[in-house]
Amino acid sequence: MAAVDGARLAVLVVTHLPNIRYLSGFSGSAGVLVVCGRESQLFTDCRYTEQVREEVNGVRVHIVREPALLAAADWLQKHRSLRRIGIEAARMSVADRDSLGKLLGSGGRLVPSGNTIERMRVIKDADEIARIRRACQIGTNLFPGLLDAIRPGVSELQVAGGLEFEARKAGAEQMSFPTIIAGGARSALPHGRASAKPIPRKGFVVCDFGVILAGYCSDMTRTVHVGLPTIAARQVYEAIREAQQAAVEAVRPGVTVGEVDSAIRKLLKKKSLAKYFTHSTGHGVGLEIHEAPKVAAGQKEALQPGMVITIEPGVYMPSRWGVRIEDTVVVTETGCEILTPCPKSLITV
Amino acid sequence: MAAVDGARLAVLVVTHLPNIRYLSGFSGSAGVLVVCGRESQLFTDCRYTEQVREEVNGVRVHIVREPALLAAADWLQKHRSLRRIGIEAARMSVADRDSLGKLLGSGGRLVPSGNTIERMRVIKDADEIARIRRACQIGTNLFPGLLDAIRPGVSELQVAGGLEFEARKAGAEQMSFPTIIAGGARSALPHGRASAKPIPRKGFVVCDFGVILAGYCSDMTRTVHVGLPTIAARQVYEAIREAQQAAVEAVRPGVTVGEVDSAIRKLLKKKSLAKYFTHSTGHGVGLEIHEAPKVAAGQKEALQPGMVITIEPGVYMPSRWGVRIEDTVVVTETGCEILTPCPKSLITV
Repeated sequence: MAAVDGARLAVLVVTHLPNIRYLSGFSGSAGVLVVCGRESQLFTDCRYTEQVREEVNGVRVHIVREPALLAAADWLQKHRSLRRIGIEAARMSVADRDSLGKLLGSGGRLVPSGNTIERMRVIKDADEIARIRRACQIGTNLFPGLLDAIRPGVSELQVAGGLEFEARKAGAEQMSFPTIIAGGARSALPHGRASAKPIPRKGFVVCDFGVILAGYCSDMTRTVHVGLPTIAARQVYEAIREAQQAAVEAVRPGVTVGEVDSAIRKLLKKKSLAKYFTHSTGHGVGLEIHEAPKVAAGQKEALQPGMVITIEPGVYMPSRWGVRIEDTVVVTETGCEILTPCPKSLITV
Repeated sequence: MAAVDGARLAVLVVTHLPNIRYLSGFSGSAGVLVVCGRESQLFTDCRYTEQVREEVNGVRVHIVREPALLAAADWLQKHRSLRRIGIEAARMSVADRDSLGKLLGSGGRLVPSGNTIERMRVIKDADEIARIRRACQIGTNLFPGLLDAIRPGVSELQVAGGLEFEARKAGAEQMSFPTIIAGGARSALPHGRASAKPIPRKGFVVCDFGVILAGYCSDMTRTVHVGLPTIAARQVYEAIREAQQAAVEAVRPGVTVGEVDSAIRKLLKKKSLAKYFTHSTGHGVGLEIHEAPKVAAGQKEALQPGMVITIEPGVYMPSRWGVRIEDTVVVTETGCEILTPCPKSLITV
């Protein structure tokens, strides 16, 4: 494996589950993958005997009784030519590293490795993009029903529940994160998970949701207005819409993620709204809902074809209102394709 | 704080989010809590400014621009009397420990601490038990609707979706884990998340689900049969039902979790089914769906009043069928209370 060779390691112990899934296809919730030479070794327990048969190809599977990490250590001890053993430093706990070190004794040296597999995952191949596109299509298709459900007095939880039911019916494995339905003053909470509070008679409702399909996530946000918006509300909404559009238009290979971020901040600054845009512009999307690259101020990473990122500016006036618009886009050779093509004009319900 | 004093540490850096929530009330998805002396310090970012105001009491809050761990390191550097700094070894990544160590330099010594906070969480107080009871009630109340939904030809995803919609309508914040609806041969997968496969015309359907309410989880499993069960199927079901009941009856203060586990294995052995019971008997339930204690063979931990655990024996015949029955129970002074009081006789739909 090139990544392992690149780090001059004989072997990499992969413990982060999305990385294990990426490399082996295994989607279980417990396991360790030892990547080395031509045949990787997957250690998991008998809850997954059937599942690995369905999911895993080209990897040697060990169904073990002891914890997977212990079994992996045993295996490494029996293959003592593998002495420089990479670990996922950002993912393995201090306790696991210490016990792995003890188990290996003088039989191997643990070398903290960077985000080797996460970096491989940044560029999606055609199959991955197809999966994300399908997940995003499900998300986008949920929007009309969501609009029907948002009515004054209905609880945010009920709106979220209806959305998630429709997602399931459309084939979603699960939601990619706790659904955010945040109405009225709660729209000022950038992470306002649906609560028991009712949708207000008037005000913004931020709706941020995504589904998982074939392991891959979708992510989108739309903000709608209940009742007739004031002129000020319209202006704020339009400012975010324009800023989001400008960022989408800035996306193309070679542009840095920091430049995409500043496309938004520049426009918001003109409207004196920049200080209310308190988070970063976006993040990568794939097997995880938040993955590399981070799309944030000052970041130098250049966009490349096959990257899938979100563009999600928002402004939040504490205790009053919030507006956010988010698309998931895939970087193409010449620009980007919006995977969540859903209306962005201000919708009043 | 006793726990910190107990470990003879001046301070504990808490990074595991459920532990942060347990100690401070903060339920956000990013933050670091420094526990020391009388006033703990919470570091988080401006996405949570509003939320900490609602949730956090008796803790000094720092809204910071830099990563929370970095801000915590800065704070620790300014309070150099705190030199022995505990970290959650099982929760902090090797990379975070290394960068925290670098930031502190000679200003502090990082001491791996055991699962101090997790151990505190094992015994639930009255308020926590009340929350788990309410979550379990929602779960239990979903069962009749679930029975109506299980029909041959309907996809497992649709059954799961309907269940989750009802959970939301009943006020659940979210499901406590991906809902398992596993019909026919898929019932042999102990972790058979709902799939696009249809409910078969005949066979077992394992239904394992839980909700989160006020931060606390519920967990229960029932297995129902579609169509007329064979005599063999009835016998297997009865064996599991008896074994599960025996384990529930074994629960009382002073009994070890290993003894609860062996109450099941003994009975299954008599029926030559023990080898098909391939996982452990249960786990603690609270802010996390899986927490201490582990209820498994040979474990010596003694039950105490206030512990909340699952009792969930199952037998699985690969590629053919599976049966599992699970209750969540709270240990009382004299035995236990079943928090998921739902029929356990074999139900045919």
